[in-house]
Amino acid sequence: MKAKVRLYVDHPLGAGQTVGLSREQAHYLFAVMRLEAGDGVLLFNGEAGEWLAEVIVANKRNPVLECRTQTGPQVSPPDLWLLFAPIKKARTDFIVEKATEMGARRIVPVLTEFTNAERVKIDRLQAHAVEAAEQCGGTFVPKVAEPVKLANLLDMWPQERSLMFCNEALVGEDRKLAGTRGPWAVLIGPEGGFSDAERQRLSELSQAHAVSLGPRILRADTAAVAALTVWQTTHGDWQ
Amino acid sequence: MKAKVRLYVDHPLGAGQTVGLSREQAHYLFAVMRLEAGDGVLLFNGEAGEWLAEVIVANKRNPVLECRTQTGPQVSPPDLWLLFAPIKKARTDFIVEKATEMGARRIVPVLTEFTNAERVKIDRLQAHAVEAAEQCGGTFVPKVAEPVKLANLLDMWPQERSLMFCNEALVGEDRKLAGTRGPWAVLIGPEGGFSDAERQRLSELSQAHAVSLGPRILRADTAAVAALTVWQTTHGDWQ
Repeated sequence: MKAKVRLYVDHPLGAGQTVGLSREQAHYLFAVMRLEAGDGVLLFNGEAGEWLAEVIVANKRNPVLECRTQTGPQVSPPDLWLLFAPIKKARTDFIVEKATEMGARRIVPVLTEFTNAERVKIDRLQAHAVEAAEQCGGTFVPKVAEPVKLANLLDMWPQERSLMFCNEALVGEDRKLAGTRGPWAVLIGPEGGFSDAERQRLSELSQAHAVSLGPRILRADTAAVAALTVWQTTHGDWQ
Repeated sequence: MKAKVRLYVDHPLGAGQTVGLSREQAHYLFAVMRLEAGDGVLLFNGEAGEWLAEVIVANKRNPVLECRTQTGPQVSPPDLWLLFAPIKKARTDFIVEKATEMGARRIVPVLTEFTNAERVKIDRLQAHAVEAAEQCGGTFVPKVAEPVKLANLLDMWPQERSLMFCNEALVGEDRKLAGTRGPWAVLIGPEGGFSDAERQRLSELSQAHAVSLGPRILRADTAAVAALTVWQTTHGDWQ
């Protein structure tokens, strides 16, 4: 039994466990991918690794899958948050997709003084994170948090969490990340840059580390991937 | 005189030099951005740095700009090629945009055995590279080369150029780039992976270095930014 499809389900997984599907998932499996009874599907729920399940009832209304064997362990990414200022819709979607592939554990839209605060649809972003996790072979889906004002977030910043922040104005400053272990966050500045007040607040935060992303100005989605690469290769699970 | 617009022009630049514009550029400056005589525009041509020019004739048919002062030196990126297997249109556009921001000098679409060879429109990709260079503040536009078969490219691979290649199957292999200086290329595998023959050929190429991009599978556009970050932070102009 080979599987052509990988699905995230919000359901317990284990040997012999039967699993239901959402209407959209059933439509995808049976109308789009035309799976039949006896076909295999890979499932993960973010906690129990990856399981090969068999289609028992290939029915769009009451589909039933049954877990057969565990095909991979649960692998959760390091304790890394990605904070970013939402930008245009398509690029915000990209940032969530890329943060998932790159192994962020939590994705937090932050509203800065220069953020053009388009309404952020958390449900849609969370769905993008699920889809990216299904595609990238991971067994973990990062949580997309409610948007928060950067100023408020910095006021209540957790003592134990280091913060790497990136901004075009930092070219030439500290380019080496300190060797601090433990939980981290990466903050991508808005395309209009941080305000003077935000810059001041960041410089006063003892957990903050400024990092340069080279001599060219990067768009926010490019900067997110580049910054996560710098972090993963120095502190994360790419080491 | 401040400038709201940055334009690439295929024209000599120097003090007192007058510069014409393409029809599209004239439309953008005078119909979209509503610039008038006396307004400033930043110009670069990929060779002569960045110049502040003044609008002399704000006319869509026969516009005239005149260079005033040089506002930045010519900065060309390191001698790095990005080779990638073309994917869906939107993501191919993204790869070209991101390679420009990340400082590739040459962008080469490569056709692999598992590339779904959609027709690659070089002119459109080159226009994306120009636009990205205008946005990212660089003074250099990478050349988008004609597509070439990977097998042919490897057969005639230049002796002096090192090649970093990335592929999901390489997890756990060599993760450190050797300290080789000189010209380099980064090769992003197709989303379907390399064929066995291609993998064999790469492993026989003495200039090739395999690099892992972590435990998750990255889409080609994510992989391009991540791989260019790894290269720029170890060998390039982010060091």
